Amino acid sequence: MYLHLQKLIHPIETDEPDPAAANALQEGLGGQFGEMRTMMQYLFQSMNFRGDPAAQPYKDLIQGVGTEEISHVELIGTTISRLLDGSPAYQGKKDDPVDKPGDKGATPLSIALDHSNIHHYLVGAQGALPVDAAGNPWSGSYVYNSGNLVLDLLYNLMLESTGRLQKCRIYEMTDNKTARSTIAYLIVRDQAHENAYAKALESLGVSWGKVLPIPKTNAERFPEVKRLVDLGLQSVQYTFDADEKSQAAKLYRGASPSNDGTELSTALMPEGSPLEMAPERREEFAPGLDAELLSLIQATAEIELAEANDPS
Amino acid sequence: MYLHLQKLIHPIETDEPDPAAANALQEGLGGQFGEMRTMMQYLFQSMNFRGDPAAQPYKDLIQGVGTEEISHVELIGTTISRLLDGSPAYQGKKDDPVDKPGDKGATPLSIALDHSNIHHYLVGAQGALPVDAAGNPWSGSYVYNSGNLVLDLLYNLMLESTGRLQKCRIYEMTDNKTARSTIAYLIVRDQAHENAYAKALESLGVSWGKVLPIPKTNAERFPEVKRLVDLGLQSVQYTFDADEKSQAAKLYRGASPSNDGTELSTALMPEGSPLEMAPERREEFAPGLDAELLSLIQATAEIELAEANDPS
Amino acid sequence: MYLHLQKLIHPIETDEPDPAAANALQEGLGGQFGEMRTMMQYLFQSMNFRGDPAAQPYKDLIQGVGTEEISHVELIGTTISRLLDGSPAYQGKKDDPVDKPGDKGATPLSIALDHSNIHHYLVGAQGALPVDAAGNPWSGSYVYNSGNLVLDLLYNLMLESTGRLQKCRIYEMTDNKTARSTIAYLIVRDQAHENAYAKALESLGVSWGKVLPIPKTNAERFPEVKRLVDLGLQSVQYTFDADEKSQAAKLYRGASPSNDGTELSTALMPEGSPLEMAPERREEFAPGLDAELLSLIQATAEIELAEANDPS
Amino acid sequence: MYLHLQKLIHPIETDEPDPAAANALQEGLGGQFGEMRTMMQYLFQSMNFRGDPAAQPYKDLIQGVGTEEISHVELIGTTISRLLDGSPAYQGKKDDPVDKPGDKGATPLSIALDHSNIHHYLVGAQGALPVDAAGNPWSGSYVYNSGNLVLDLLYNLMLESTGRLQKCRIYEMTDNKTARSTIAYLIVRDQAHENAYAKALESLGVSWGKVLPIPKTNAERFPEVKRLVDLGLQSVQYTFDADEKSQAAKLYRGASPSNDGTELSTALMPEGSPLEMAPERREEFAPGLDAELLSLIQATAEIELAEANDPS
Amino acid sequence: MYLHLQKLIHPIETDEPDPAAANALQEGLGGQFGEMRTMMQYLFQSMNFRGDPAAQPYKDLIQGVGTEEISHVELIGTTISRLLDGSPAYQGKKDDPVDKPGDKGATPLSIALDHSNIHHYLVGAQGALPVDAAGNPWSGSYVYNSGNLVLDLLYNLMLESTGRLQKCRIYEMTDNKTARSTIAYLIVRDQAHENAYAKALESLGVSWGKVLPIPKTNAERFPEVKRLVDLGLQSVQYTFDADEKSQAAKLYRGASPSNDGTELSTALMPEGSPLEMAPERREEFAPGLDAELLSLIQATAEIELAEANDPS
Amino acid sequence: MYLHLQKLIHPIETDEPDPAAANALQEGLGGQFGEMRTMMQYLFQSMNFRGDPAAQPYKDLIQGVGTEEISHVELIGTTISRLLDGSPAYQGKKDDPVDKPGDKGATPLSIALDHSNIHHYLVGAQGALPVDAAGNPWSGSYVYNSGNLVLDLLYNLMLESTGRLQKCRIYEMTDNKTARSTIAYLIVRDQAHENAYAKALESLGVSWGKVLPIPKTNAERFPEVKRLVDLGLQSVQYTFDADEKSQAAKLYRGASPSNDGTELSTALMPEGSPLEMAPERREEFAPGLDAELLSLIQATAEIELAEANDPS
Repeated sequence: MYLHLQKLIHPIETDEPDPAAANALQEGLGGQFGEMRTMMQYLFQSMNFRGDPAAQPYKDLIQGVGTEEISHVELIGTTISRLLDGSPAYQGKKDDPVDKPGDKGATPLSIALDHSNIHHYLVGAQGALPVDAAGNPWSGSYVYNSGNLVLDLLYNLMLESTGRLQKCRIYEMTDNKTARSTIAYLIVRDQAHENAYAKALESLGVSWGKVLPIPKTNAERFPEVKRLVDLGLQSVQYTFDADEKSQAAKLYRGASPSNDGTELSTALMPEGSPLEMAPERREEFAPGLDAELLSLIQATAEIELAEANDPS
Repeated sequence: MYLHLQKLIHPIETDEPDPAAANALQEGLGGQFGEMRTMMQYLFQSMNFRGDPAAQPYKDLIQGVGTEEISHVELIGTTISRLLDGSPAYQGKKDDPVDKPGDKGATPLSIALDHSNIHHYLVGAQGALPVDAAGNPWSGSYVYNSGNLVLDLLYNLMLESTGRLQKCRIYEMTDNKTARSTIAYLIVRDQAHENAYAKALESLGVSWGKVLPIPKTNAERFPEVKRLVDLGLQSVQYTFDADEKSQAAKLYRGASPSNDGTELSTALMPEGSPLEMAPERREEFAPGLDAELLSLIQATAEIELAEANDPS
Repeated sequence: MYLHLQKLIHPIETDEPDPAAANALQEGLGGQFGEMRTMMQYLFQSMNFRGDPAAQPYKDLIQGVGTEEISHVELIGTTISRLLDGSPAYQGKKDDPVDKPGDKGATPLSIALDHSNIHHYLVGAQGALPVDAAGNPWSGSYVYNSGNLVLDLLYNLMLESTGRLQKCRIYEMTDNKTARSTIAYLIVRDQAHENAYAKALESLGVSWGKVLPIPKTNAERFPEVKRLVDLGLQSVQYTFDADEKSQAAKLYRGASPSNDGTELSTALMPEGSPLEMAPERREEFAPGLDAELLSLIQATAEIELAEANDPS
Repeated sequence: MYLHLQKLIHPIETDEPDPAAANALQEGLGGQFGEMRTMMQYLFQSMNFRGDPAAQPYKDLIQGVGTEEISHVELIGTTISRLLDGSPAYQGKKDDPVDKPGDKGATPLSIALDHSNIHHYLVGAQGALPVDAAGNPWSGSYVYNSGNLVLDLLYNLMLESTGRLQKCRIYEMTDNKTARSTIAYLIVRDQAHENAYAKALESLGVSWGKVLPIPKTNAERFPEVKRLVDLGLQSVQYTFDADEKSQAAKLYRGASPSNDGTELSTALMPEGSPLEMAPERREEFAPGLDAELLSLIQATAEIELAEANDPS
Repeated sequence: MYLHLQKLIHPIETDEPDPAAANALQEGLGGQFGEMRTMMQYLFQSMNFRGDPAAQPYKDLIQGVGTEEISHVELIGTTISRLLDGSPAYQGKKDDPVDKPGDKGATPLSIALDHSNIHHYLVGAQGALPVDAAGNPWSGSYVYNSGNLVLDLLYNLMLESTGRLQKCRIYEMTDNKTARSTIAYLIVRDQAHENAYAKALESLGVSWGKVLPIPKTNAERFPEVKRLVDLGLQSVQYTFDADEKSQAAKLYRGASPSNDGTELSTALMPEGSPLEMAPERREEFAPGLDAELLSLIQATAEIELAEANDPS
Repeated sequence: MYLHLQKLIHPIETDEPDPAAANALQEGLGGQFGEMRTMMQYLFQSMNFRGDPAAQPYKDLIQGVGTEEISHVELIGTTISRLLDGSPAYQGKKDDPVDKPGDKGATPLSIALDHSNIHHYLVGAQGALPVDAAGNPWSGSYVYNSGNLVLDLLYNLMLESTGRLQKCRIYEMTDNKTARSTIAYLIVRDQAHENAYAKALESLGVSWGKVLPIPKTNAERFPEVKRLVDLGLQSVQYTFDADEKSQAAKLYRGASPSNDGTELSTALMPEGSPLEMAPERREEFAPGLDAELLSLIQATAEIELAEANDPS
């Protein structure tokens, strides 16, 4: 059973809208090695987990990473929305035609014709989509769950490493701060998850030598990443386990397999950052309410106040 | 941000394995109108939600239903696993060849050749898959999020009603108790969600007359459903909101649009039921550990005890 | 612009329900070489047709065959519906539980678990689906329209021949009369279309020798087909051209390329056969109306009578 | 059974080629909420329709809208073809290299490399494709036909509204007159269809208050749309029923649910507009005939004249 | 550049037709972890290989395994064809109706309606298809080629292990000798490839402890596998390198990582086994030649003899 | 069974990187009518081939063309890699930031955001992908193998002609020499294959008149093509048959059906051209080895030299 907190797992920095960066980030959301995939893969591996009761720490580790991935979906999806939000207006449409969509035949959404994924404007309303950066919808065929513990761990290690590789490449595509604040965070968290699966395999006798982390990238070169590595975020694993029964700490402990000299440790969850609601976009007819409907909504919103005043 | 509790949202009854029923339930998990879809659709609608701050109750309602759907994925996925688990042995292989997979050329998995989805045995290890009952992988193209509030609510009402319709049809396909305990629960919860979206549209001026609930089915005819309706589970909406900020109660209140005479109300979450680990299945090589690897796992599991005894 | 007549292009014989035959016929509806594909391919080739005004007969020929294919979709779709309709009751559920779906926990749809495509009962309501016999949804990637006239004609000849080959194979799979009445008709009409495209290529200088028809099958062996061949239906092409401007007759004339000694000729359209509405199926909640909703529908239906009596 | 008229349902205005607008319009043709989908969905709902004979008006309404959608496919497909036709030459290739494709190594199709969907030039020959604006092929999985009347009507209302929403967004993307003449027409017709399904649900007791039309857009702002609304095209429904048996008028009557003060009424069909053949495009090898093949075609075309002169 | 030898890489044993076994083997041909996938993945990894010239042995190893996989596609495809070939006649149709397909309305292909994948009879002519055991077409999205050497090797190890796991499961599904002779061979060769990628990673410093081979299966239990393991086929790697430049032997040498006490070694290729042509199947219209066409083919075949007799 | 030679079937000319041309060539690799498809289609047709032993020349012809297609996959895949390789640096990033990927927050991969297929940089490492020019993954549903000989030959003729048509269009899109050297070669080889299937159908009695080749393009206009046509490469067919048993020469002989006055003839294989390894690309982390891992690789590479010096 799952609970939700009205917080983002990590803050998103403010910058100009950037639909091209938004599209690149779609790979990290709906791509074959993105967050929707890790979330679903670990959820299925947890549901179908088999074995000796002694294997509980392995299940708890996978479940904990999987729960974190839901918050990563929320984080990167929200980041994409922010990068898209207002992008038509930002592209030089300074006289605000978006207030009057198509008024007198204006074309406030013309940006959609030659930017990245036209569906960001045509199907969604300047919001994230469950597709990759080339526009392919996410597919259930991505999920890997063989039921064989060694294979599942090996796949998960490869999956996190590929996710991290792709995010390093996205980092090199854009310097938009909104995009980078999330990408840098996910690069570091993917490394924490690489450590998790590498460590689980170490407990079964594998020794990684110097091949980790994958890719071999020096955090000093990526300033936004370095800041988070200096905080040690690549070496801590959250359990997100509301009843605190998780045994993941039996595996996620000891020297990091990333050869960076840190010790691994666990915690319940990060502090989180406030969630905000995006503004109306009239050129998208989103939410598309006229004065009458809006007044009905406001009436609903006022109920609480009225009740607070009249608690009878 | 999300948290997980090591509990199932509703208990699963025990009965014999039944791979055909398991396959029918796949529609409720990975089908176009199944729980993976509702979960993802509401998650995207929440992330991309736009509008006046007064619209917060609408966002919170969608977010809350979406969080519940993750627990529904967990519930129906676990139910499918239990229906599949041990099914080869159950089909008359009484002399336990599964203990020695393929020993001397035996065929302990021959059941896979003529039952429902061969992938349940060949790709998964007698566990749930992210596909529908005809074997189609779940697709991101299912997710609907137009950004227009009235349309999104209308779609969500239709989605919950179609999910409920399909589950009523699955109910009529099998009387396996394991399958029915989950199907009956989801029929009732889908009605609670129908009520949620119908009520949200009522707040915008729509009047439903007598068309709800959809489908028009009389709970008295389905004994397992009736038991839950008698408890009122079709008229309560959980928020699963760990920091209890949700304003969904401003919408989910008053007379039920299902015309059953009940009043709608909200709660934080249900009590939950224990989660258990599935046993090893050697004929699937799952988890596929030999004596050496198992002893390594047991060593990991014993760490805690050792530390408890020696807290230095 | 298109018009519809409330008639089927060919009568469907009555026989018992047969879901396995229904599923085989899905290939002829939604398969890669089925009627939805021919319909769409010719519609696109007509819309995108290019060239000298002298090429009008080629365009008209393609357009006319394409219009016929819409009626074929209607015919084979209706045939599938009839083969499915009532199939659960027919499979030995003699005490009519379908009148009371799931009543007291009954399983009136259990047939769905082990017959062909479970979606016929679970997603559709004992009706045709836009999928092939293996359950794959129809795809726009099937449509071929290169814009090169010789290539498009060559492809169309291959397409009709493959459609005819597959229908001959379906004929050999079942002797259900409902299924065969439609399959036999489509075998003969596919041959008429093979003739159309072969003849168009003959007009460009190709000579087919003895390779046609494909497949080389002797109608005498298939009694239901022979009956229609004896009527000459394989050598007539309809234009379905309401304003009778079609120049297809300039191509569809002269000796048949099928080497059967007939002369080709054109006509406007066949006579047609009455369309009927399928009965309610309560176990599918289809149409799923209760007494109140049904009375509202009846009120609508009575309007005409009332107005007829009171023409004021 | 279907007939075809050699007319377009609505005239297409002439303007410069515009491949980016052509690509945006693909969503309206082959997108999840485009005309291929409405056409197929209503065709399947008609074929599989069930129920009391009193429900005939509902079936006739769906069938009539479905028949209109075939003409919409023809209209928007033809519009896309016209927007693409000649676009390589138009992009500054003034010295007409397209007359001699690739002559001496020229690159008359270089436009394809950086415009929208390269398949418009590489796979098709400057013509429409059965794909959406992001290049995804149309899929049979889009078709919704639950068999439950209320659900099917609700879905159809949502489908028409989403189609209209997306076309309003496309309108805002381009001011090309060719594109807009068709988009404006389809916005108005989608509203007519919203009215159809909304009215059918009204007959079952639903009251829509002020939520319709969806989206809430004021036609005055879109000049091309306003012109058609002023003609009342959003409040008339065609039956396209060649034998004039349709009972759709029992539902499509009375005050418009769009709250615009009009009365709904039915008619057989619009007047239509002439269809024309597109010119040869040598750089596409379309139709790709050399002098010898062309003379054979001309010989075919001359048959009629010869016969007219010599009627013996 | 590639050459072909008219030999199979391993002999196929003779047994009765078995369409259910044929369908299970489809996973090994067209499944996500089947031979088409390994073949394509290694072909892409070879084409796109990057790095220091010193990395040549790694490229040669991947290329060599990839070339072997083409022969595996040929082997398993041919095996599936043999399992299907003649299966309709074998299923009790003893009076040979297949000689006269559909004669007088017979149903020689009725087996297709209730066996595994109907496309084996309806789309193919009792031959292999590029799909998996659940009927999903092979997809290019399966191919993994990150460009990062460690990741690609890790993925390849996981891929071969999953292929071997699935083939062990298929082994347990059927004891048909035709099926098992190929499955057993591929289980052993997949282990040879596991060794290849494990060894390449060992050269980069990874130590596998006791986790290999995956799955942990004891060959003694599978008699057909044991026979090949006793010959050492799991510890030899072929290069299939016609110009014998491959440096794969620099990696494929030393103690086997499978912990079975063998030493790894390389060879050019196995001896091979004769290829045969399958007989005509008239009920499939395959190859579908009548007497006239067959005599034309025979005339072609006789050319060589004539020329041999008259070498002028 | 297949062998590989470390040679390319045709040399690739050197020119600047060109990601847009690379993307267009993807259609020729992974498109519906590209080389992966011809390769797989002919491989399946060979495996499943049926008939009289006299039909051996037909099987050998298909097998020989199919083997050539594997080398075409290798050729066009390598060409795409070369067009992509180094393209970020070439686009004005002259101060070589790619040596230090992302150093101090640089964006060496920003080219990926607005060029063709972002996956060329994000998923692959500046290398070929198994997708078409619009980004759709290759699908097994493309493969056509009806088992009917005339139909399979007809389809193959259409397939080669469509491949050639599309490559002529790609030729007109770019004048990059790297791209054109491969495209021109494939245009000529596709014509050789058109001849192969046209000739096989001629042996069955079809006469093509003047319709071939398709498309009707005059090689003189394409200088790079003309050079190869002058060498007669459109009229020779290779067998790639290592044991030289192929009887394809019985069909591939006599006057060319392309009406160009040449005589058809066969040969074993072309001479071939050297294969080279692509350089490291640090901004892609490909191969992504640090100093320690590289030294391990070099140690492996030195083994041979050491052994050569010390052969004990």
